[in-house]
Amino acid sequence: MIVVMKSGASQDQIRYMTAQVEGLGLKAHVIIGAERTVIAAVGIKRDGTKESLAIGDGVADVVPISAPYKVASLEVKEERTVVTAGSLQVGGPRVGMIAGPCSVESEQQILETARAVKTAGGSALRGGAFKPRTSPYSFQGMKEEGLELLAAARSATGLAIVTEVVASEDVPLVSHYADVLQIGARNMQNYRLLEAVGNCERAVLLKRGPSATIDELLLAAEYILDRGNTNVMLCERGIRTFESHTRFTLPLATVPYLHQKTHLPVVIDPSHGTGHAFLVPDMAAAAIAAGADGLIVEVHPNPEKAFSDGYQSLNFDAFASMMEQCRNIAHATGREL
Amino acid sequence: MIVVMKSGASQDQIRYMTAQVEGLGLKAHVIIGAERTVIAAVGIKRDGTKESLAIGDGVADVVPISAPYKVASLEVKEERTVVTAGSLQVGGPRVGMIAGPCSVESEQQILETARAVKTAGGSALRGGAFKPRTSPYSFQGMKEEGLELLAAARSATGLAIVTEVVASEDVPLVSHYADVLQIGARNMQNYRLLEAVGNCERAVLLKRGPSATIDELLLAAEYILDRGNTNVMLCERGIRTFESHTRFTLPLATVPYLHQKTHLPVVIDPSHGTGHAFLVPDMAAAAIAAGADGLIVEVHPNPEKAFSDGYQSLNFDAFASMMEQCRNIAHATGREL
Amino acid sequence: MIVVMKSGASQDQIRYMTAQVEGLGLKAHVIIGAERTVIAAVGIKRDGTKESLAIGDGVADVVPISAPYKVASLEVKEERTVVTAGSLQVGGPRVGMIAGPCSVESEQQILETARAVKTAGGSALRGGAFKPRTSPYSFQGMKEEGLELLAAARSATGLAIVTEVVASEDVPLVSHYADVLQIGARNMQNYRLLEAVGNCERAVLLKRGPSATIDELLLAAEYILDRGNTNVMLCERGIRTFESHTRFTLPLATVPYLHQKTHLPVVIDPSHGTGHAFLVPDMAAAAIAAGADGLIVEVHPNPEKAFSDGYQSLNFDAFASMMEQCRNIAHATGREL
Amino acid sequence: MIVVMKSGASQDQIRYMTAQVEGLGLKAHVIIGAERTVIAAVGIKRDGTKESLAIGDGVADVVPISAPYKVASLEVKEERTVVTAGSLQVGGPRVGMIAGPCSVESEQQILETARAVKTAGGSALRGGAFKPRTSPYSFQGMKEEGLELLAAARSATGLAIVTEVVASEDVPLVSHYADVLQIGARNMQNYRLLEAVGNCERAVLLKRGPSATIDELLLAAEYILDRGNTNVMLCERGIRTFESHTRFTLPLATVPYLHQKTHLPVVIDPSHGTGHAFLVPDMAAAAIAAGADGLIVEVHPNPEKAFSDGYQSLNFDAFASMMEQCRNIAHATGREL
Repeated sequence: MIVVMKSGASQDQIRYMTAQVEGLGLKAHVIIGAERTVIAAVGIKRDGTKESLAIGDGVADVVPISAPYKVASLEVKEERTVVTAGSLQVGGPRVGMIAGPCSVESEQQILETARAVKTAGGSALRGGAFKPRTSPYSFQGMKEEGLELLAAARSATGLAIVTEVVASEDVPLVSHYADVLQIGARNMQNYRLLEAVGNCERAVLLKRGPSATIDELLLAAEYILDRGNTNVMLCERGIRTFESHTRFTLPLATVPYLHQKTHLPVVIDPSHGTGHAFLVPDMAAAAIAAGADGLIVEVHPNPEKAFSDGYQSLNFDAFASMMEQCRNIAHATGREL
Repeated sequence: MIVVMKSGASQDQIRYMTAQVEGLGLKAHVIIGAERTVIAAVGIKRDGTKESLAIGDGVADVVPISAPYKVASLEVKEERTVVTAGSLQVGGPRVGMIAGPCSVESEQQILETARAVKTAGGSALRGGAFKPRTSPYSFQGMKEEGLELLAAARSATGLAIVTEVVASEDVPLVSHYADVLQIGARNMQNYRLLEAVGNCERAVLLKRGPSATIDELLLAAEYILDRGNTNVMLCERGIRTFESHTRFTLPLATVPYLHQKTHLPVVIDPSHGTGHAFLVPDMAAAAIAAGADGLIVEVHPNPEKAFSDGYQSLNFDAFASMMEQCRNIAHATGREL
Repeated sequence: MIVVMKSGASQDQIRYMTAQVEGLGLKAHVIIGAERTVIAAVGIKRDGTKESLAIGDGVADVVPISAPYKVASLEVKEERTVVTAGSLQVGGPRVGMIAGPCSVESEQQILETARAVKTAGGSALRGGAFKPRTSPYSFQGMKEEGLELLAAARSATGLAIVTEVVASEDVPLVSHYADVLQIGARNMQNYRLLEAVGNCERAVLLKRGPSATIDELLLAAEYILDRGNTNVMLCERGIRTFESHTRFTLPLATVPYLHQKTHLPVVIDPSHGTGHAFLVPDMAAAAIAAGADGLIVEVHPNPEKAFSDGYQSLNFDAFASMMEQCRNIAHATGREL
Repeated sequence: MIVVMKSGASQDQIRYMTAQVEGLGLKAHVIIGAERTVIAAVGIKRDGTKESLAIGDGVADVVPISAPYKVASLEVKEERTVVTAGSLQVGGPRVGMIAGPCSVESEQQILETARAVKTAGGSALRGGAFKPRTSPYSFQGMKEEGLELLAAARSATGLAIVTEVVASEDVPLVSHYADVLQIGARNMQNYRLLEAVGNCERAVLLKRGPSATIDELLLAAEYILDRGNTNVMLCERGIRTFESHTRFTLPLATVPYLHQKTHLPVVIDPSHGTGHAFLVPDMAAAAIAAGADGLIVEVHPNPEKAFSDGYQSLNFDAFASMMEQCRNIAHATGREL
């Protein structure tokens, strides 16, 4: 950590801060610059150290040096993590394609969709049974009945099941049916839930919150990894910005950036990331070109009739055509799809 | 809802969309404009209606007309809600001042702070016992022991207790000790938790998530109100923007805006809203000038030694001085503090 | 335009607003909904109409229906514009690749770079002679001497020259040397400058401002088109958001979105859009996969010694390798590079 | 500057970077930490130094230590600047109140408004003669005729005139009529214009661009100060964020923050900052409570008929009432209005 003194800080203030640094068990190096003095604080930082130094008299700023996450860091584990869950593999030589409806709505809907996803070459089926909804008056999902229908779709097609879990008390139930537990964007910092999935054996798809920084995403993953579950995929699904022509802003630079920081694989959600079906195929292709390890895409037999997210869902034809487009790009990057 | 057709939409497309609107049980009014045709869809909207219409052929946009929240709306209840919880009243002729440390750290720390808050004229004591923390390696709070210390501080000073609850399963325990349950910004859309506090009898302080829209905040409140708990305060604590010289951006226009939309009282948190102790007093004063019904401010006997949020905590002297500044502004707005 | 009345608006208020609409020369359709009344205002909107209606008593909102830009709209001209300027073509079957240093620094630097760009297959040379710089103490460019060096580089390689013009009074001078006039992000709404380039015959590369909406970008283009210059390329170079691990946030969804709204070709700048050389190649590839018509990339013989933007500049090897990567993606989308 | 090496950087990389730092004429201090090595680079930084170091092998980050602005800095001049221009004083014991229409529309409109502003206690008259407009089809202002009407209003009331200048070539003309030259948000980084107003003798009101950082605002001021004009007021008028219920987001923390960084006075524009007349008075009051040295507010005899910005303009009654509200707050802060 670097303690930056204000220009014009007094010798007393510098001495005081040096003592503060040493009082925290850190070694202090005082460096007198052309305009300012800085104190480098070396050693193992404890929680709150930065804050406590930053409010000292004469201090202009405290600049941390180390990344706050550990287990997720590429500096700790250089070998890339490949997540495997049934038919789905993410992080290897094949791009993982997770597709399906926002919500499970009926047996026919989910079975038809599973077959269409399978036929087009998808690797896993998504579908929400427990739905977190912005309004209490919106459809909240079919719950356990939905999970059973997902399991039936797996039996029929062999596709792994990806579905959201919204509360720690539901983890045993959802784990019973699902191959991958999805942590939704709203729950990225629901730490009780992160710990619960960290304690179970299912793979986890962790979605970035719409205002979370990359460090916050990696620290959320750290909650899961810290409990012993290392089968974690990170998912970029768009951030909130001033842009209003898309539902969220999808920053694909997250892909190469995360690949420099962490060994965990990166999945892109172009459906939530854009909010409009007509933008999804091009952004899916772009994600693969940027190096994404997987995609998660909303597909529905009849988007006009969907209970939720019809806006951003592809019908079967559009999905099959998007698969074609994405496969070409995957091949151009030396991978399969 | 207004379905806006693309310029150049065909008669067939317009006829098809008119039928779609009617198929949803809505009445359709077709209006032929200078450049475009729009179809006004009148009636009770069901979930997903907007989405399903928006993807019709030839449709440029679908514009909703009604606010999605109901019980929280000023259109439903014109009389302003006054929330009362022990010594705290928010929404009436006195500005409610909630103050205390980020985390309960020890008996001495919380008792000293409670007395300082009481002496300076504060109306309630805040303090975290269950702490949601970005990093799994950070101090996570004293849990039930912290709640007991808060209750002891109430006994000693008469101040109402405001403390955060982070999971639905903790609601009974936290309700046993606290006067006001705080829902933190990270949990604003933790619906299971919102329902749980909606089912209990404690007053609720609901913090806005850093990327939540005002409509999303009001819909989160709606989850609580819908369960029958109407003692809800809304809290603005800053949004995430590109500004980096403050921790969050504190948009005080939220105060007069919410006062036009909802009967629920509005509390401002200038500590998280700025992230720097030196900015807190002026922003607290500004919040009252903008009409805020209450404030929640971090105060610590020794911010340099705080386990969390030392950066943005006032010491006792700074808090007493801020109270003086705020009291002058409250009087200038015809209120007490 | 749709005037949305407040729920509970009185008959008098509705009558008054209807008269207001008619007073503006528009036809009023009153639609009585389940909860609210709306008035559809049909006809040619004049400037300020929306504002004047919005402040009427009992009005909740006024919703515009038509896009504010005309000449740039795909609704006005369906055929895509192909911009040609010397060796550069953007909007056709070949992806246009503009590359070069941020600033022209010396004869050797620009000639070497031009040759490297040419060898790797680039289609135009960029280089700043007039540099708008955040600080008055930074290098401000070589000015006319820089333009002469660019022209010399064109003579040596045949590459078209793309360079920025920062003031209307410089347009004749810069036009004398350059093939494409770049309007930088800071000047996107410098209307005097837009008019000046609209009056000249050079092709224009118009960069989106970091907080401009897409409508504002298209209206800025409209200033140029309106003066008769239709050789306009739109350039996305990133927007300002809370993300701090990249210099700006590069929203590639701009590409397919603009392709649905305008006939003008779309260029992506992954150098400014990310701010880090290690992110540029993957984002360049992603841009092409998303359908970008062209790219503009910073290349420097020795980024460590660059006078500006060294951070985000590729050296010659990295650029050649990026070209390879991009060419594969271009082929996968059925285009050349 | 602090060069932070990657964890695991080799001794060779550290030696190489040390040599690089010294090659730039800086003194290098190598500090070996628990996890990483950092190199403190001491001395006068040249332009591009940060960039050139940041791309060295094994470098994780380069952290600047000094603020980039000089003349505007409180560290350079501790005494606060008071700007005086005719009847207007900003930065002293009286809050400066600038009010008037967005655009000058007619003699009657501007004279009536000037009298109403004067009567209510305003200190200067604003009014646009050269209007930068998002759309080329919008009203662009009365130009020199508008300036003459402003001068006539000054003769009639004694109020100083604040009006925008949009191009360097207009500075002599606008200076001839105006007391204060306003640089609009769109032109905050139009450096040619900043230099032109820096070379003239009129006071300047410099508006923050909607995506400019505080450092960028201060560096824009630096362009003016550097030319010798020190009569500069900084104006916060809102930033662009995801909030859509206000036109911009008005971050009042800018006021106390700037007061810690610069000696220049700070003006708040609650009209653009909110975009809605009903939010203006409370935000004006809040701005004064936060310590703002001045306000700039849009007032129009008949906002429903305004050529521009009718939405956010107060009529005379609302303005007089706002003045009363603001005066109470000013007194509560020990100042006059």
